[in-house]
Amino acid sequence: MQFELTRKYIEDLKEAIVRNDEIALIELLQDLHPADLGEILGELDVVESTVVYKVLDADRASDVLTFMEEDRRDKFLASLSSREIAEQLIDNLDSDDAADMLNLFSQEQKEEIISMIEDRQQAQDIVDLLHYEEGTAGSLMAKELIKVNINWTVSNSVREMRKQAESIEHVYTVYVVDDEGCLVGRLPIKRLLLTPLKTRIADIYDSKIRSVGVDEDQEDIASMMEKYDLVALPVVDELGRLQGRITIDDVVDIIKEEAERDYALASGISGDVDSSDTVYRLTRARLPWLLIGLIGGVLGARVIELYEGDLQLYPEMAFFIPLIAAMGGNAGVQSSAIIVQGLANKSMGMSGILPKLGKEFMVGLLNGIVCAALILLYNIAFGDSLDLSYTVSAALLSVIVIATLFGTFVPLLLDKYDIDPALATGPFITTVNDVLGLFIYFMIGHLLYI
Amino acid sequence: MQFELTRKYIEDLKEAIVRNDEIALIELLQDLHPADLGEILGELDVVESTVVYKVLDADRASDVLTFMEEDRRDKFLASLSSREIAEQLIDNLDSDDAADMLNLFSQEQKEEIISMIEDRQQAQDIVDLLHYEEGTAGSLMAKELIKVNINWTVSNSVREMRKQAESIEHVYTVYVVDDEGCLVGRLPIKRLLLTPLKTRIADIYDSKIRSVGVDEDQEDIASMMEKYDLVALPVVDELGRLQGRITIDDVVDIIKEEAERDYALASGISGDVDSSDTVYRLTRARLPWLLIGLIGGVLGARVIELYEGDLQLYPEMAFFIPLIAAMGGNAGVQSSAIIVQGLANKSMGMSGILPKLGKEFMVGLLNGIVCAALILLYNIAFGDSLDLSYTVSAALLSVIVIATLFGTFVPLLLDKYDIDPALATGPFITTVNDVLGLFIYFMIGHLLYI
Repeated sequence: MQFELTRKYIEDLKEAIVRNDEIALIELLQDLHPADLGEILGELDVVESTVVYKVLDADRASDVLTFMEEDRRDKFLASLSSREIAEQLIDNLDSDDAADMLNLFSQEQKEEIISMIEDRQQAQDIVDLLHYEEGTAGSLMAKELIKVNINWTVSNSVREMRKQAESIEHVYTVYVVDDEGCLVGRLPIKRLLLTPLKTRIADIYDSKIRSVGVDEDQEDIASMMEKYDLVALPVVDELGRLQGRITIDDVVDIIKEEAERDYALASGISGDVDSSDTVYRLTRARLPWLLIGLIGGVLGARVIELYEGDLQLYPEMAFFIPLIAAMGGNAGVQSSAIIVQGLANKSMGMSGILPKLGKEFMVGLLNGIVCAALILLYNIAFGDSLDLSYTVSAALLSVIVIATLFGTFVPLLLDKYDIDPALATGPFITTVNDVLGLFIYFMIGHLLYI
Repeated sequence: MQFELTRKYIEDLKEAIVRNDEIALIELLQDLHPADLGEILGELDVVESTVVYKVLDADRASDVLTFMEEDRRDKFLASLSSREIAEQLIDNLDSDDAADMLNLFSQEQKEEIISMIEDRQQAQDIVDLLHYEEGTAGSLMAKELIKVNINWTVSNSVREMRKQAESIEHVYTVYVVDDEGCLVGRLPIKRLLLTPLKTRIADIYDSKIRSVGVDEDQEDIASMMEKYDLVALPVVDELGRLQGRITIDDVVDIIKEEAERDYALASGISGDVDSSDTVYRLTRARLPWLLIGLIGGVLGARVIELYEGDLQLYPEMAFFIPLIAAMGGNAGVQSSAIIVQGLANKSMGMSGILPKLGKEFMVGLLNGIVCAALILLYNIAFGDSLDLSYTVSAALLSVIVIATLFGTFVPLLLDKYDIDPALATGPFITTVNDVLGLFIYFMIGHLLYI
């Protein structure tokens, strides 16, 4: 039951656009979800998109913008007048999406658009939302919700709920407030179904309800909704007055973005880029991490230079330089990834840094012994000198253990000082461990071999 | 409003356990969500946990198990008799959680437990769910839902809904079925509130509804619910009969696990491990990737060995071995990560492999030119021979471009053959690019320098 975008479909659509065949277009686009439409527009050029856009009904025409790629959407918005934006788009969006969209404009244009919104309640809601700082509960919530007063009767409440429900797509929860507008609980829909109309809400509402303050951080909200399996979360101001609600679909995006951000950082990509971005943006997101690698490489060159004389006498020492450097990097990245994910999931338990280092020491030791033994067998079997074989294995074991400890320690340290531990994975850890590994290798070489 | 686990709290709890002070225990645990209880039990030993567990009410006692760490939960379940499991746990769980839990037992014990479930409807539901293959819609859905017949009146429906609502925590959607039990649409709660009691459901229901078949893959379901912002999704059998529903909280876990899995693979960790796992499990998850690195290192050693004579004459060639190897690895991982995320998000558009390679070629070229220029300046400034400087820069540029293309191509190729492209990131790409880089370096060295 999911729409699948095919080449055939896009060709049909383009043909209909060329023929300017409005009836064919409407038929092709009918019943498609705005998310699908956003995907389709991504395959068309700007002129074609405009033709498609014009035949959409008002609701989808505004919703599709929230599903479009940024660059494309910005071009679109730039081609519309403030009045068109206010009347055709903002009026039809939920307050939170409308506020997000308004934030794309300059202060001046923002005010102009707001002054042209016909639905004054919507305009007020949007202005309220614009006050909250980005990344807080306030900026994430929508003002649309259903609330009843604790002093009302069921029949009163049902009448009021009908009015409120008109502007709402999903009724997740009916909130109960007191005369000051403070959140006091929720009214389960099933109790509403089960109770005589004269019953007072005070007698049937459920006072157990979780809420967050308007200033709460969005990542904390995401982890809270995930932990407690919440689909909607009410937001209250400093006085406890109900201000809005956050729904799970907004939070799914945050959870996903967070996980993707850690992944991107671990792979040496900063910022939120994807393969459809421009060459310039893609390059800019990657270059800083390559430069870190470059600095590491230069430091590595300096380390080896210290042992230039030895290399001249024992060039076979050079054979295992990449092995030692790579294994340090790999082992370090593994440990730091475990820690970063543990911190992100709050699944680290309450033990301190030392027990964690102790455990990772054991893991590093086991992995190191296996790898060192294998490489020793290989070297002996393929006739390298015994001394060189011992050197390589001893260095490999040391490097794996030290890199493992280092990869554990750095993200824990960063987290302690409230720096994002994900910064420590990927190129940074690899690079430091590369250089460290070379030092260890040549030092052990001096002891055992040279 | 989120419970925060503190050392103080755990100490108080442990003290109450030692004193066997049931009243203090009940007070400490009161109002805590099963998710919090699961976290708390993770900090206690098995004996302490059992004491805490005994004072929980039936609902929380069963729910907490779904939030407990696997090892701990399995020990717990092993200490209970089949009758206790059937009556105290399975009866109080939602059908999907109950089926998941039953899957932990042997076939024999499973049947024994099922025969002891008192609520026969629950037993039937669970048996139905156990038939579905893991990872499909059928295995993910719960049987609990609210449905009304299209031929009923509103008053009929409300009466039936009351009965059905008793076993359900959240009423997301009221489904509408025909006399054969086939899903035909949904009944928005707000229409129910707005309509006279005699109205027939057929006149007010909404026939637009998305559903999935019982065999649909869970990752497809997750991406569908995410794309369309769905909070619940009905599941139908081959004849279109309504079988159950999947809710967003189940899907949030899948979305998160998927993202985490890609991250773990990119960092060289296989399987679902976290820092609380045993040393043995942690080692086993990492060793295979270290062994790939080891093989790469050995191949690298072989490559350098080919040029042993050159190294004896020009030991300074060795200085830049780690730089070249590391930069190839870094650039390759960056490209493959971009592709893997694009594939996971289905945001790759419909262009073929060639345009993507063309774009990445440009990115690689830009990054390569910047890095090669910088290292050239460095080498000239710090007095390395001009020929060596040219060699290093030319090799670096080639390595970055080739590694970038390689990192783009491999995951696309794997995806084409339905192999998980995430396997290509991390140690595999790094290792291949290490070896490739060394070849290029020495070949260019031969051309320009040696």
